Amino acid sequence: MSESEIKFDAETGLVTAVVQDYGTRDVLMVAYMNREALKRTISTGYAHYWSRSRRKLWMKGETSGNTQRVREIMVDCDGDALLLVVEQKGVACHTGNRTCFFRRVYSATHV
Amino acid sequence: MSESEIKFDAETGLVTAVVQDYGTRDVLMVAYMNREALKRTISTGYAHYWSRSRRKLWMKGETSGNTQRVREIMVDCDGDALLLVVEQKGVACHTGNRTCFFRRVYSATHV
Repeated sequence: MSESEIKFDAETGLVTAVVQDYGTRDVLMVAYMNREALKRTISTGYAHYWSRSRRKLWMKGETSGNTQRVREIMVDCDGDALLLVVEQKGVACHTGNRTCFFRRVYSATHV
Repeated sequence: MSESEIKFDAETGLVTAVVQDYGTRDVLMVAYMNREALKRTISTGYAHYWSRSRRKLWMKGETSGNTQRVREIMVDCDGDALLLVVEQKGVACHTGNRTCFFRRVYSATHV
Protein backbone atom coordinates (compact mmCIF):
# COMPACT_ATOMS: atom_id res chain seq x y z
CA MET A 1 0.00 0.00 0.00
CA SER A 2 0.98 3.61 -0.44
CA GLU A 3 1.59 6.23 2.21
CA SER A 4 -1.07 8.29 0.46
CA GLU A 5 -3.67 5.96 1.98
CA ILE A 6 -2.88 7.34 5.41
CA LYS A 7 -5.63 9.73 6.47
CA PHE A 8 -4.15 12.62 8.38
CA ASP A 9 -6.92 14.41 10.27
CA ALA A 10 -8.38 17.23 8.16
CA GLU A 11 -8.34 19.63 11.08
CA THR A 12 -5.14 18.77 12.96
CA GLY A 13 -3.08 17.13 10.21
CA LEU A 14 -2.25 14.28 12.59
CA VAL A 15 -2.60 10.53 12.88
CA THR A 16 -2.37 8.55 16.10
CA ALA A 17 0.77 6.42 16.39
CA VAL A 18 0.85 3.40 18.68
CA VAL A 19 4.38 2.29 19.47
CA GLN A 20 5.17 -1.35 20.22
CA ASP A 21 8.47 -2.89 21.29
CA TYR A 22 9.82 -5.29 18.67
CA GLY A 23 11.36 -7.62 21.22
CA THR A 24 9.01 -7.70 24.22
CA ARG A 25 5.87 -6.76 22.23
CA ASP A 26 4.91 -4.36 25.04
CA VAL A 27 2.92 -1.33 23.98
CA LEU A 28 5.30 1.49 24.86
CA MET A 29 3.45 4.74 24.17
CA VAL A 30 0.95 6.64 22.07
CA ALA A 31 2.09 9.66 20.09
CA TYR A 32 1.04 11.71 17.06
CA MET A 33 2.54 12.17 13.61
CA ASN A 34 1.99 14.69 10.87
CA ARG A 35 3.19 14.14 7.29
CA GLU A 36 6.61 15.58 8.02
CA ALA A 37 7.10 13.36 11.09
CA LEU A 38 6.27 10.28 9.03
CA LYS A 39 8.54 11.43 6.21
CA ARG A 40 11.49 11.95 8.55
CA THR A 41 10.82 8.66 10.31
CA ILE A 42 10.97 6.81 7.02
CA SER A 43 13.99 8.71 5.70
CA THR A 44 16.06 8.28 8.88
CA GLY A 45 14.69 4.99 10.25
CA TYR A 46 14.19 6.65 13.64
CA ALA A 47 10.80 7.63 15.12
CA HIS A 48 9.83 11.30 14.81
CA TYR A 49 6.60 12.69 16.24
CA TRP A 50 4.61 15.87 16.42
CA SER A 51 4.33 17.27 19.93
CA ARG A 52 0.86 18.72 20.42
CA SER A 53 1.85 20.56 23.60
CA ARG A 54 5.09 22.05 22.29
CA ARG A 55 3.76 22.35 18.74
CA LYS A 56 6.93 21.07 17.18
CA LEU A 57 8.42 18.11 15.43
CA TRP A 58 10.78 16.04 17.57
CA MET A 59 12.85 12.92 17.26
CA LYS A 60 12.17 10.50 20.09
CA GLY A 61 15.34 10.39 22.19
CA GLU A 62 16.87 13.56 20.75
CA THR A 63 17.49 14.76 24.31
CA SER A 64 17.38 11.57 26.39
CA GLY A 65 19.18 9.32 23.95
CA ASN A 66 16.29 6.86 24.19
CA THR A 67 15.77 6.56 20.48
CA GLN A 68 13.42 4.25 18.61
CA ARG A 69 14.76 2.38 15.60
CA VAL A 70 11.74 1.59 13.47
CA ARG A 71 11.38 -1.98 12.17
CA GLU A 72 8.02 -1.59 10.52
CA ILE A 73 5.00 0.66 10.29
CA MET A 74 1.50 -0.69 9.83
CA VAL A 75 -1.65 1.34 9.15
CA ASP A 76 -5.10 0.36 10.34
CA CYS A 77 -8.18 -0.46 8.27
CA ASP A 78 -9.55 3.06 8.21
CA GLY A 79 -6.17 4.71 7.70
CA ASP A 80 -6.14 7.01 10.72
CA ALA A 81 -3.88 5.11 13.10
CA LEU A 82 -0.35 3.80 12.69
CA LEU A 83 1.48 1.05 14.53
CA LEU A 84 5.23 1.53 14.80
CA VAL A 85 7.20 -1.55 15.76
CA VAL A 86 10.48 -0.32 17.21
CA GLU A 87 13.72 -1.26 18.87
CA GLN A 88 13.58 0.92 21.97
CA LYS A 89 16.93 2.12 23.28
CA GLY A 90 16.73 2.57 27.06
CA VAL A 91 13.22 3.35 28.26
CA ALA A 92 10.25 4.80 26.39
CA CYS A 93 8.75 6.84 29.22
CA HIS A 94 10.05 10.13 30.55
CA THR A 95 9.28 8.82 34.07
CA GLY A 96 12.01 6.22 33.68
CA ASN A 97 9.58 3.35 33.17
CA ARG A 98 10.15 1.03 30.26
CA THR A 99 6.63 1.73 28.96
CA CYS A 100 4.31 4.72 29.45
CA PHE A 101 1.55 2.24 30.38
CA PHE A 102 2.80 1.37 33.86
CA ARG A 103 -0.34 2.19 35.90
CA ARG A 104 -3.20 -0.29 36.17
CA VAL A 105 -6.78 1.04 36.25
CA TYR A 106 -8.63 -2.26 36.12
CA SER A 107 -7.90 -5.94 36.46
CA ALA A 108 -10.43 -8.70 35.81
CA THR A 109 -10.99 -10.76 38.92
CA HIS A 110 -13.13 -13.49 37.47
CA VAL A 111 -11.19 -14.82 34.48
CA MET B 1 -4.42 4.46 40.99
CA SER B 2 -7.91 5.86 40.61
CA GLU B 3 -9.99 6.18 37.48
CA SER B 4 -10.21 9.88 38.30
CA GLU B 5 -6.62 10.22 37.11
CA ILE B 6 -7.74 9.51 33.57
CA LYS B 7 -7.80 12.74 31.59
CA PHE B 8 -10.72 12.73 29.21
CA ASP B 9 -10.21 15.43 26.58
CA ALA B 10 -11.78 18.71 27.70
CA GLU B 11 -13.32 19.30 24.30
CA THR B 12 -14.36 15.83 23.11
CA GLY B 13 -14.66 13.98 26.43
CA LEU B 14 -12.65 11.11 24.98
CA VAL B 15 -9.46 9.18 25.63
CA THR B 16 -7.65 7.05 23.08
CA ALA B 17 -7.86 3.32 23.75
CA VAL B 18 -5.24 0.96 22.33
CA VAL B 19 -6.42 -2.63 22.30
CA GLN B 20 -3.95 -5.52 22.62
CA ASP B 21 -4.62 -9.25 22.42
CA TYR B 22 -3.88 -10.99 25.72
CA GLY B 23 -2.69 -14.18 24.06
CA THR B 24 -0.82 -13.14 20.92
CA ARG B 25 0.11 -9.65 22.18
CA ASP B 26 -0.82 -8.26 18.76
CA VAL B 27 -2.10 -4.69 18.74
CA LEU B 28 -5.66 -5.19 17.47
CA MET B 29 -7.17 -1.74 17.07
CA VAL B 30 -7.40 1.85 18.27
CA ALA B 31 -10.74 3.17 19.54
CA TYR B 32 -12.08 5.93 21.78
CA MET B 33 -13.78 5.91 25.15
CA ASN B 34 -15.77 8.47 27.07
CA ARG B 35 -16.52 8.14 30.79
CA GLU B 36 -19.64 6.08 30.16
CA ALA B 37 -17.83 3.65 27.85
CA LEU B 38 -15.16 3.09 30.50
CA LYS B 39 -17.79 2.67 33.20
CA ARG B 40 -19.70 0.06 31.22
CA THR B 41 -16.49 -1.73 30.28
CA ILE B 42 -15.55 -2.06 33.93
CA SER B 43 -19.04 -3.01 35.10
CA THR B 44 -19.56 -5.68 32.41
CA GLY B 45 -15.99 -6.83 31.77
CA TYR B 46 -16.54 -6.36 28.02
CA ALA B 47 -15.07 -3.53 25.94
CA HIS B 48 -17.38 -0.62 25.15
CA TYR B 49 -16.32 2.34 23.03
CA TRP B 50 -17.58 5.67 21.76
CA SER B 51 -18.06 5.76 18.02
CA ARG B 52 -17.01 9.18 16.74
CA SER B 53 -18.64 8.63 13.33
CA ARG B 54 -21.95 7.26 14.63
CA ARG B 55 -21.83 9.40 17.78
CA LYS B 56 -22.97 6.59 20.00
CA LEU B 57 -21.77 4.18 22.63
CA TRP B 58 -21.32 0.63 21.42
CA MET B 59 -20.17 -2.68 22.78
CA LYS B 60 -17.51 -4.26 20.60
CA GLY B 61 -19.08 -7.33 19.02
CA GLU B 62 -22.68 -6.36 19.78
CA THR B 63 -23.54 -7.07 16.14
CA SER B 64 -20.71 -9.31 14.95
CA GLY B 65 -20.36 -11.39 18.10
CA ASN B 66 -16.64 -10.58 18.13
CA THR B 67 -16.57 -9.40 21.72
CA GLN B 68 -13.55 -8.40 23.78
CA ARG B 69 -13.29 -9.74 27.32
CA VAL B 70 -11.10 -7.27 29.19
CA ARG B 71 -8.27 -8.67 31.29
CA GLU B 72 -6.74 -5.41 32.34
CA ILE B 73 -6.70 -1.71 31.60
CA MET B 74 -3.57 0.38 31.93
CA VAL B 75 -3.32 4.18 31.70
CA ASP B 76 -0.31 6.02 30.35
CA CYS B 77 1.95 8.49 32.15
CA ASP B 78 0.02 11.59 31.12
CA GLY B 79 -3.40 9.99 31.63
CA ASP B 80 -4.83 10.51 28.17
CA ALA B 81 -4.42 7.06 26.64
CA LEU B 82 -5.59 3.66 27.82
CA LEU B 83 -4.30 0.19 26.99
CA LEU B 84 -6.94 -2.55 27.09
CA VAL B 85 -5.59 -6.08 27.20
CA VAL B 86 -8.37 -8.33 25.92
CA GLU B 87 -9.39 -11.83 24.98
CA GLN B 88 -10.61 -11.27 21.45
CA LYS B 89 -13.42 -13.54 20.30
CA GLY B 90 -13.18 -14.11 16.54
CA VAL B 91 -11.50 -11.22 14.74
CA ALA B 92 -11.06 -7.60 15.80
CA CYS B 93 -11.38 -5.99 12.37
CA HIS B 94 -14.59 -5.46 10.40
CA THR B 95 -12.64 -6.50 7.28
CA GLY B 96 -12.32 -10.02 8.67
CA ASN B 97 -8.66 -9.61 9.57
CA ARG B 98 -7.55 -10.63 13.04
CA THR B 99 -6.12 -7.13 13.66
CA CYS B 100 -6.99 -3.76 12.13
CA PHE B 101 -3.25 -3.24 11.51
CA PHE B 102 -2.90 -5.61 8.57
CA ARG B 103 -1.37 -3.20 6.01
CA ARG B 104 2.34 -2.42 6.00
CA VAL B 105 3.50 1.11 5.12
CA TYR B 106 7.20 0.72 5.85
CA SER B 107 9.67 -2.02 6.58
CA ALA B 108 13.29 -1.44 7.58
CA THR B 109 15.64 -2.93 5.04
CA HIS B 110 18.90 -2.41 6.84
CA VAL B 111 18.43 -3.91 10.29
